Amino acid sequence: MSNEPKNAFYAQSGGVTAVINASACGLIETARKHSDKIANVYAGRNGIIGALTEDLIDTNKESAENIAALKHTPGGAFGSCRHKLKSLEDNEEEYKRLIEVFKAHNIGYFFYNGGGDSQDTAHKVSQIGEKMGFPITCVGVPKTVDNDLPITDNCPGFGSVAKYVATSIREASFDVASMAKTSTKVFVMEVMGRHAGWIAAAGGLATEKEGDAPHIILFPEITFDEAAFLAKVDASVKNYGYCSIVVSEGVQNADGKFLAEAGGVDSFGHAQLGGVAPVIAELVKSKLGYKYHWAVADYLQRSARHIASKSDVEQAYALGVKAVEYAIDGHNAVMPTVERISDDPYEWKIGMANLADVANVEKMMPENYISEDGMHITEECRTYLQPLIQGEDYPPFKNGLPDYVELVNAPVEKKLNTEFKI
Amino acid sequence: MSNEPKNAFYAQSGGVTAVINASACGLIETARKHSDKIANVYAGRNGIIGALTEDLIDTNKESAENIAALKHTPGGAFGSCRHKLKSLEDNEEEYKRLIEVFKAHNIGYFFYNGGGDSQDTAHKVSQIGEKMGFPITCVGVPKTVDNDLPITDNCPGFGSVAKYVATSIREASFDVASMAKTSTKVFVMEVMGRHAGWIAAAGGLATEKEGDAPHIILFPEITFDEAAFLAKVDASVKNYGYCSIVVSEGVQNADGKFLAEAGGVDSFGHAQLGGVAPVIAELVKSKLGYKYHWAVADYLQRSARHIASKSDVEQAYALGVKAVEYAIDGHNAVMPTVERISDDPYEWKIGMANLADVANVEKMMPENYISEDGMHITEECRTYLQPLIQGEDYPPFKNGLPDYVELVNAPVEKKLNTEFKI
Repeated sequence: MSNEPKNAFYAQSGGVTAVINASACGLIETARKHSDKIANVYAGRNGIIGALTEDLIDTNKESAENIAALKHTPGGAFGSCRHKLKSLEDNEEEYKRLIEVFKAHNIGYFFYNGGGDSQDTAHKVSQIGEKMGFPITCVGVPKTVDNDLPITDNCPGFGSVAKYVATSIREASFDVASMAKTSTKVFVMEVMGRHAGWIAAAGGLATEKEGDAPHIILFPEITFDEAAFLAKVDASVKNYGYCSIVVSEGVQNADGKFLAEAGGVDSFGHAQLGGVAPVIAELVKSKLGYKYHWAVADYLQRSARHIASKSDVEQAYALGVKAVEYAIDGHNAVMPTVERISDDPYEWKIGMANLADVANVEKMMPENYISEDGMHITEECRTYLQPLIQGEDYPPFKNGLPDYVELVNAPVEKKLNTEFKI
Repeated sequence: MSNEPKNAFYAQSGGVTAVINASACGLIETARKHSDKIANVYAGRNGIIGALTEDLIDTNKESAENIAALKHTPGGAFGSCRHKLKSLEDNEEEYKRLIEVFKAHNIGYFFYNGGGDSQDTAHKVSQIGEKMGFPITCVGVPKTVDNDLPITDNCPGFGSVAKYVATSIREASFDVASMAKTSTKVFVMEVMGRHAGWIAAAGGLATEKEGDAPHIILFPEITFDEAAFLAKVDASVKNYGYCSIVVSEGVQNADGKFLAEAGGVDSFGHAQLGGVAPVIAELVKSKLGYKYHWAVADYLQRSARHIASKSDVEQAYALGVKAVEYAIDGHNAVMPTVERISDDPYEWKIGMANLADVANVEKMMPENYISEDGMHITEECRTYLQPLIQGEDYPPFKNGLPDYVELVNAPVEKKLNTEFKI
């Protein structure tokens, strides 16, 4: 690579989180400090689609204040997308187009901020230097509330969901406990995690002593056992006056069907719309007669920047910083990772993984993280999870509400006059 | 009343909130300062049921730290209940029993912390002095997330729900806006409020300028107009890329049926379980084809002490303080109220209402608080709501989670050997 500074391309990919913008903040702030190496950061509008359609955002047009405010703003400030590049062999056109756009805009760095699929994409793009003769430095930036990337100790975004879920089930359970004598006895909260129970497990952090809510956690890893579940609900109501339940959206029955889809049909003839929480709640009511309430947190859980984990925010930011440092140090096809040094006190540092080792590997929850009855977490799990929710990092408030930034997102002038069909 | 200090009875009633314990805190702390007038505060375990069953809690057994911690703890620390006393004429037995228990425990003050039904109960109890010859000083303490008590400017509990709802819809909308290009375009968040749209209206505070979410609010006061709704959803997606919707659980169709119940049946043959959010979401999908996500906040919204409104906490506390001061000043059959002095800067003081004027009066949302198209709030509404979410009042955190107190709740020794059937 010549000594002339190149531009960098940065994109957010897949489901967004409360802290993906903190990574963008760390990345852009660090790039600005190294303007001798990186002239400008162009962000893809709506992720990789922005690169394919030459729809680039000029981050140099954003004030330092705006970029700094990304650290406390949820969602994806440049837009994200769900678009997975096929392999070079299967869709060479897309890669040719990327090179065309990168060449036109003098882009020498590719930063891709996302989960498993996105790291796979970053890995594929890193191959175009060798396979298609276009030298580009590719660095992945980890992000996923699913916490399923390998090598890294945890994934930015997860710690904040974990803190939200544990806080919310604790708070709602204080409510239910108050009402249980004459009213609601069972509360069900549905959380994300179709394939892995990391988020559901985080709810277990609210249980600090015997009798604390949640009393039951239903994991996607554990086949739903109706009889055992109902027996535990009943015992909880009898022992503690109420029963508080965290259920993963991915819980399945013995036939391998999602419980959420095992219900009836709605007025449009479609499968039951209500998610898994109402199915579980109604089962309890029909079999045990207990009055219930249920909640589905959905996007609230992954966007709740107001209750973000401080360690999560700091790691997201540090990973953005390190991505740039790795790139200008000449590392290619890598991803910065979180390395845990100690559990208590919690210490961590940023490490490095090869994208080849990250792509297409899904980290599942270890078996010994789920208690023997399959309905709560173990001490090992608690030891792993506890540091990830440490610390509060409140956003500034204005008019009683979090003051989140909306960027200018000024377009970079197009240099190509060609359309590209996604 | 003689100069010998009497005991006080305090109970929490109806659905609990994030700040009802702040009222308990103010009340108990103030009673402790006036031990020459109030010997002890006995709390009813599970509300008025605790009085009827002589199941009293000795609050003198709680440390000053525990009582202080109530100010930041959600739920009802002594337990609440849904039990409405009938009129003296219809169920004299209950009143006789109350007098029996009050006499046995030397109770001269009755503090009842609740919403409309509870203030009605407090009013009825205030009549036993005159009608049944048992002198007792009755003071109601307002509380209800429904914000439907008359005379008082607003109701403790509501401001915190309002802050939670406006914060949550803003955060989730940042998420949806990021994803809208290739994924979710419509987000629906269901909130409480079966009869009045106060909570749904609060979501509108997140809209500070043209295009801000939420784009649509569906109120129980406005008959659901499918065509107008769908047109607005479509326009929002076309203009802003996505559509964010707050829907009250109480929205009804032209037949006066709750939309939540107008869906299909589940696998148990019961009415659609999913609440109104999935019904609205699926309607959008079937008619406009947009991908959706939906959330049901349920108890999370009214227990979210971690994002409580500071003015709400302060008012809840001050109302508890004033309740005691009114009582020892000899006021009977009254309720302290919030009186608004000015909107901006927000200033308020504690006033006083007669329970006779509060009981069985429901404050509805003024018509001019809902915009002309029936799907958002007006400036008048914003002016009213804005101060109620002012300020943050974070609870202390421990191990990454809010550190809420669980009281000892030691029983007062029973003096009667009689059972009472509720």
